[in-house]
Amino acid sequence: MSDRYLSFVNSPWGRRVAQAAGLPQPVPLLRHRSGQAALVNPVIVAGAGRLVEQVQRLFTATDTVAATPATLKAPSTVKVQGAVFDATGVVDVQQLDALYAFFHANARRLGPQSRVVVLGTAPEHCQAAPQSIAQRALEGLVRSLAKELHRAITVQLIYVAPGAEDALDSSLRFFLSRRSAYVSGQVVRLEKPVDGQVAVDWNAPFAGRRALVTGASRGIGLAIAQVLARDGAHVVCVDVPQARDALQQAASSVGGAALTLDITAADAAASLQDHISQHGAFDVVVHNAGITRDKTIAKMSEDAWRSVLAVNLQAPLQLSQALLDHQGVNPGGRIICVSSISGIAGNLGQSNYATSKAGVIGLVQALAPQAAAQQVTVNAVAPGFIETRMTAKIPLMIREAGRRMNSLSQGGQPIDVAETIAWLAHPASGGVNGQVVRVCGQSLLGA
Amino acid sequence: MSDRYLSFVNSPWGRRVAQAAGLPQPVPLLRHRSGQAALVNPVIVAGAGRLVEQVQRLFTATDTVAATPATLKAPSTVKVQGAVFDATGVVDVQQLDALYAFFHANARRLGPQSRVVVLGTAPEHCQAAPQSIAQRALEGLVRSLAKELHRAITVQLIYVAPGAEDALDSSLRFFLSRRSAYVSGQVVRLEKPVDGQVAVDWNAPFAGRRALVTGASRGIGLAIAQVLARDGAHVVCVDVPQARDALQQAASSVGGAALTLDITAADAAASLQDHISQHGAFDVVVHNAGITRDKTIAKMSEDAWRSVLAVNLQAPLQLSQALLDHQGVNPGGRIICVSSISGIAGNLGQSNYATSKAGVIGLVQALAPQAAAQQVTVNAVAPGFIETRMTAKIPLMIREAGRRMNSLSQGGQPIDVAETIAWLAHPASGGVNGQVVRVCGQSLLGA
Repeated sequence: MSDRYLSFVNSPWGRRVAQAAGLPQPVPLLRHRSGQAALVNPVIVAGAGRLVEQVQRLFTATDTVAATPATLKAPSTVKVQGAVFDATGVVDVQQLDALYAFFHANARRLGPQSRVVVLGTAPEHCQAAPQSIAQRALEGLVRSLAKELHRAITVQLIYVAPGAEDALDSSLRFFLSRRSAYVSGQVVRLEKPVDGQVAVDWNAPFAGRRALVTGASRGIGLAIAQVLARDGAHVVCVDVPQARDALQQAASSVGGAALTLDITAADAAASLQDHISQHGAFDVVVHNAGITRDKTIAKMSEDAWRSVLAVNLQAPLQLSQALLDHQGVNPGGRIICVSSISGIAGNLGQSNYATSKAGVIGLVQALAPQAAAQQVTVNAVAPGFIETRMTAKIPLMIREAGRRMNSLSQGGQPIDVAETIAWLAHPASGGVNGQVVRVCGQSLLGA
Repeated sequence: MSDRYLSFVNSPWGRRVAQAAGLPQPVPLLRHRSGQAALVNPVIVAGAGRLVEQVQRLFTATDTVAATPATLKAPSTVKVQGAVFDATGVVDVQQLDALYAFFHANARRLGPQSRVVVLGTAPEHCQAAPQSIAQRALEGLVRSLAKELHRAITVQLIYVAPGAEDALDSSLRFFLSRRSAYVSGQVVRLEKPVDGQVAVDWNAPFAGRRALVTGASRGIGLAIAQVLARDGAHVVCVDVPQARDALQQAASSVGGAALTLDITAADAAASLQDHISQHGAFDVVVHNAGITRDKTIAKMSEDAWRSVLAVNLQAPLQLSQALLDHQGVNPGGRIICVSSISGIAGNLGQSNYATSKAGVIGLVQALAPQAAAQQVTVNAVAPGFIETRMTAKIPLMIREAGRRMNSLSQGGQPIDVAETIAWLAHPASGGVNGQVVRVCGQSLLGA
């Protein structure tokens, strides 16, 4: 689970060797720590749309960030830690020139590990063709900048639907913080929130809330439980009976409860309902449990196919459906699934896994409208290469390729997935529904 | 423009060297030639949905292919050249087992250069959640098989909307032929055709039809003109005044006409209308002209930004809009744009190009519904690494990486783009509208 090359190229002589040989030079990512400032600071706020004032208010309100108005004509040379460009005012292709002018003048002001966010209006919400085309074009700009700015700078595009302005804060706070260190080149759509406005404690957003995390005894699942607990949740940790000891340990380490459950069992939904009758419904449900059984299709056993589909897709579907059918998730609740880059791009030797993880995207898209009627959202993260026990087993050369084939030239950590899930699970994220967000450092792989 | 490595690994000793060293072993692609059988042969037809009979009829009708019914229990060992699995009958995750069973039993029967097509119902057209999830899961299966079957086998997923059954033939004939040699891992949606049924001459589908191709004096544009002319079209070749000589030569080589036009000129649309008043409206319009001016954003001149946006995005938009506004495209007509993998995934040093090519995707999606009202479709191809004079200028190592980072381990040829455009332009392709189809050998790159 350790990336020795990352340490090597960041040693004094390793840096020289890597430079001379033209090797990748990943930068150790700064990640959020409790007690640190919530947002990066200072940030340039630029552009001219319906959101620019709201963005500036966010910074003033937090007292942690000095908003620097963009002065396009005479660019300052003061280094910054981020930039927000409100492009919602762009109504045709020619007006995209403003984004060129801004990034051309300010790219070099962005310090290492900067956070860049472009705000737009989704093409499907634009009235006129020239506007929807220009807004769609922003994807190409954002994904290119995410590939070329280097130095661990991340760049995202957030499409904010008319009427979704109030739902923007939780997403801005995620993408302008160290929590999103391993998320880059992503396009997120915000719609009118499925739930009403809530008073949010930004330091402990999950206080008084109950979360369920499957596969929580180790790896990414444990990190999810830890982050949700850190942010105030009571976490019910689920794993199979065989992992009982590790599960108990995980649950007590986060001050939560342990629930042994085979999520593929015929009575899994009923068992979960029993638990809910005794302890109450959940506010956050994270379907993290997943397995791989890799083989090419000609060599794959029927059991390898079926078990992967059962754990990764059928179980989250059946449990989600049961939870929604029987008020197992409170209004304002969140269901979050774990898809994968393999589910997006397909993968050699993973036809079972990729099918299951593509199905998870289908699950999110199918259940999102239905859940919205109960004021619940359904979203997924799609991790890329994450440093876990699972990826540590990959042969060295393939592992090295997997690690480096992304804009940050390194694998992510379980906490990167967990922080992204915590954003989707946030009480103020009711405007994010039916989305799949990659946690992959902008992996080259895709479809 | 020559791929020496491809020749090398297909020489007797080159093959041994590549095998021993674990190097990529691309297979020279078989491409369609006039006079050859239209479809690969024989093909296994399997699955149980609403399309299986229609697929079998297609083969019987052409007299070129013997349909072999799938016998899942006792698989034959006879080699085949392709397979069609009708998965429209799959209504839940468990029924995906039928696809595992089929491909597990038959993967080894697929000869080199086989064509595999899975037919499904798009999730958005499914009534129940379990069905839409299972149908969405097919994407993961198809993209994985496309990556693992090797030996230049291609695999696609075609979602056929209820009511679009009659629109299937032109797509099946493309994806089950040698014309689609460099297209793999694609997902195509067929809807109810925008136009009425037409009597089709499958040998000369464009007979009596007028086509316009921009940037036609060389490279991909010339190949497009050649393929459309081969299939019966009268082609009007467009290029800038500076390319007049090459343009004249191109036009006469395809028995067409030359029209010099700067598509970014203020009066370009008016000039085109003049041409149309004299010679008649078009049935096929291909916006192929495009330029690159690569630099990272901080070093990019304003002119490099603007000229790329003007040629690649504003010109196709303005010309398409003018053509649609003034009946410049006949009912049953087709507008086809050229996007790019860079427009999908972004690219380092191509923020201008990627923005323009992402905008082209927006153009297709914005104009498709509007054009449909005039019985016209608007689609795009997105080429990956194609062997042209443009890509020949890329430094060797980067060029080699670009060539090999796809499931066919080689770059495509201009004719691969041209054949794909000819399919989209086909009189029987009225069910394909608003789509972006990659011609990239299933490049690893994506979003």
